[in-house]
Amino acid sequence: MNVTSMDVARVAKVSQATVSRVLNDNPNVSEEKRAAVLAAMEAVGYRPNVLAQGLRMRKTATIGVVVAGITNPFYPEALEAVGKQLERAGQRMVLWDSDRGGEEAALDAVQQGLVDGVIFTSVSEGSGTLDEALRLKAPIVLLNRGSINASCDQVTSNNFEGAAEAARYLYQIGHRRIGLLGGPLAARTARDRMDGFLHGLRELGQPVPDELICDALFTHEGGRMGVQELLDLDDPPTAVFCVNDFSAFGAVDGAREAGLDVPLQLSVVGYDDVAMAAWRSYQLTTVSQQLDAMSGRAVELLLRRVGRHEAPVRHDHFSGALVIRNTTAPPASQA
Amino acid sequence: MNVTSMDVARVAKVSQATVSRVLNDNPNVSEEKRAAVLAAMEAVGYRPNVLAQGLRMRKTATIGVVVAGITNPFYPEALEAVGKQLERAGQRMVLWDSDRGGEEAALDAVQQGLVDGVIFTSVSEGSGTLDEALRLKAPIVLLNRGSINASCDQVTSNNFEGAAEAARYLYQIGHRRIGLLGGPLAARTARDRMDGFLHGLRELGQPVPDELICDALFTHEGGRMGVQELLDLDDPPTAVFCVNDFSAFGAVDGAREAGLDVPLQLSVVGYDDVAMAAWRSYQLTTVSQQLDAMSGRAVELLLRRVGRHEAPVRHDHFSGALVIRNTTAPPASQA
Repeated sequence: MNVTSMDVARVAKVSQATVSRVLNDNPNVSEEKRAAVLAAMEAVGYRPNVLAQGLRMRKTATIGVVVAGITNPFYPEALEAVGKQLERAGQRMVLWDSDRGGEEAALDAVQQGLVDGVIFTSVSEGSGTLDEALRLKAPIVLLNRGSINASCDQVTSNNFEGAAEAARYLYQIGHRRIGLLGGPLAARTARDRMDGFLHGLRELGQPVPDELICDALFTHEGGRMGVQELLDLDDPPTAVFCVNDFSAFGAVDGAREAGLDVPLQLSVVGYDDVAMAAWRSYQLTTVSQQLDAMSGRAVELLLRRVGRHEAPVRHDHFSGALVIRNTTAPPASQA
Repeated sequence: MNVTSMDVARVAKVSQATVSRVLNDNPNVSEEKRAAVLAAMEAVGYRPNVLAQGLRMRKTATIGVVVAGITNPFYPEALEAVGKQLERAGQRMVLWDSDRGGEEAALDAVQQGLVDGVIFTSVSEGSGTLDEALRLKAPIVLLNRGSINASCDQVTSNNFEGAAEAARYLYQIGHRRIGLLGGPLAARTARDRMDGFLHGLRELGQPVPDELICDALFTHEGGRMGVQELLDLDDPPTAVFCVNDFSAFGAVDGAREAGLDVPLQLSVVGYDDVAMAAWRSYQLTTVSQQLDAMSGRAVELLLRRVGRHEAPVRHDHFSGALVIRNTTAPPASQA
């Protein structure tokens, strides 16, 4: 049975608030009560929990993580990976959803000493909260989604290069009419992937005409609608690159709804390599991110930052790798 | 630009700790300093944030939510639904992952007054943390996964009846050899669904032989392995019921890997009706939960409990509804 500070309070015949003051070395407690509390702790075998111990050391051993768009399967996987790395480092994890005011809440929590630092997995360029956090020198690390302007530790994939590799692969297997399903431009990840993809094709003398670039959302529905728009063109693409797997699943489903065979009539490439990408019903060709290594680095940088605010800022990029599965094939005319 | 307590401290020429003491009505501040802080607040237009306001009223306007197995697509959707309902109620949400010590962390947080109450979405029968929370009279509500023995507010689907309906449907379209892919028995949700399914078939004079009941995990891989085991039998089933959608997607993929057509050679039914169940590549027949209504009720009950610890305990059940899509059809011999 777990002994709590309530048991200590009962035995010491003081309030729970007094026990907590003793735990926190608050001078506002009489010596008599302090002695009673310490004796009661020993009598009941009380071990202060991690959080209480942290408070005494002015550390909470708790790290905040801010996520967004949690129904994108990438984020639960990122959370798993970060959670594992935090556990390994002896840290607790607490999460906020940035779609529900989580950025501000996380910043409040770090100011109030409830968490030691925050990992942002989805900050948008020009986020006011991020500016504020930097002004306050709060210990933060950006993971997955970087920000050009933010002077803070960042751990990202080399999204530009990963997308360029996807472009070269589609060209190499024979595609010459290739569509691009983009994402919200405020997201640096999406922009880098779009830029990298367009750059890769431009270098091969194969610029992408505007009509083949489609603004989509980062969602299944976004990919589904986007691919239908491209397929409605007079001269539709034979392949399409999507800036994430979530929208790529939508593109595959949209093509199947339109009666097309994937990959024989349309090749689809995603980005992230979430677990679902390997599932039999999709077997998606995609670009994998080194999520475990990235998460480990983010935790390492954040804990360094918690201990030493003035450490030099680091931007670490991890390379991606093209994973070829069954949603890509040479175009029908060449098959 | 957001004005913070740091700006107030600078203008009042006091420490940030002093500002925080004034905000919290801590008597341990001189009248002189208190006046300086109040004047500075007015001068810089400072509005204390929700959390700080909460502390003054001894409420945080923050609710903790504990989830598990976040890579099961049901949980991100449950989080979205709960988050929306909390937002509507003017509450902030903070999350813990029970796979990473989240149950204990949430209980600590409620004891320390960092959150007003906790919604557990995945507690296991016999959880020590739950017992402890009840002993401490912490405001908690169980959402989705109930517990027979726990005397606390609970909001669940009528999992028994939903699964019985799925059983009757499979029988009615002609299946007589029907498999069951179960889940961890410590999870009340899984047990109720298994019991309801077996009951539904027993009532039709169609008991399920032991060899067709397969212990699986609540995961895609669990469903995939489970269905392969059933398909390896000398007399394999023509239909299979899975205790959640996550494992049902695995069952569909496992059957497809084995070269079977779903639904012509194997019907598959899931439970939860996650968004993916409607995606073209699965179009899964499943039992839907009223997730929005359930989440709204959980938030309502929890806030009632936060205000009034002695309110009578409520167990609210919401009915599910069978959603027939394209993974079910009459067995081949009858088609």
